[in-house]
Amino acid sequence: MKVEPIGLIHSPFSEAPGTPIQPSLAQGAEGVVEVFGEYAEALRDLAGFERIWLLYWFHKAAPARLTVRPYMDDNLRGLFATRAPCRPNPIGMSAVRLLRIDGCNLHVADLDILNDTPLLDIKPYVPRFDHFDVSRVGWLSGKDPGGKAADERFSQRQ
Amino acid sequence: MKVEPIGLIHSPFSEAPGTPIQPSLAQGAEGVVEVFGEYAEALRDLAGFERIWLLYWFHKAAPARLTVRPYMDDNLRGLFATRAPCRPNPIGMSAVRLLRIDGCNLHVADLDILNDTPLLDIKPYVPRFDHFDVSRVGWLSGKDPGGKAADERFSQRQ
Repeated sequence: MKVEPIGLIHSPFSEAPGTPIQPSLAQGAEGVVEVFGEYAEALRDLAGFERIWLLYWFHKAAPARLTVRPYMDDNLRGLFATRAPCRPNPIGMSAVRLLRIDGCNLHVADLDILNDTPLLDIKPYVPRFDHFDVSRVGWLSGKDPGGKAADERFSQRQ
Repeated sequence: MKVEPIGLIHSPFSEAPGTPIQPSLAQGAEGVVEVFGEYAEALRDLAGFERIWLLYWFHKAAPARLTVRPYMDDNLRGLFATRAPCRPNPIGMSAVRLLRIDGCNLHVADLDILNDTPLLDIKPYVPRFDHFDVSRVGWLSGKDPGGKAADERFSQRQ
């Protein structure tokens, strides 16, 4: 099973340290999602959506680990109970705000993605599909993510 | 960029016709997510989460199309403005309800996934990260998904 980039994400964040850890914590950070021209037709109707899911390849993440010390905790947690990037299949997902579309360039805000990240997919964000009321969020219960940003802990060694 | 299955999804749906089109429309349909033993340790702490994202490979989807007639509309729409499975990188995402974990078997509900689908990733569903208030949902505005199920339109030809 092979994946291929359908575009590239241009972001103000060139390295992990200081990069927001989630769109909801990105304080509006803006960037441009460049979709390759061959997919232009697939962008039809996208402008009507306020927010879009980006699926992308964590190209700068360290090799997969089974347990990690996530940004929001001091304890070692099972990888699948975290959103850390060093995953067996290093696929990230971020629901970013779509500001406008200019040809094949999607101007977006709330970006938590590194510059030059390969884009794999775009899907519309639909509350009817993506909102669920949940009362249990495991080890994240009561954690305050305020002010958290990434650091080097999940980066590839140079 | 290669992806490899980290498990298999066992579901009551063996073919597209009649399969729910989203977890929120699955009326509780139950199944088992089998995670391969080598990833057992990565499941630590997952049981605390009420809902989990599954990322998976649309193994029965037709080849990619740039425009599709989605289940909830009669018009041709740009693929990236839909959640249709026939995508350049056929990666699906579903937020399913985690009922219990039995070793490497995750018992889940609200399943909208075909039987034997290769699992690529598991991430916790976290409202702080995954809920966004949006007022614009493009062509889906005012559509009532009630009672919709999949049909053959996005299936591989036999």
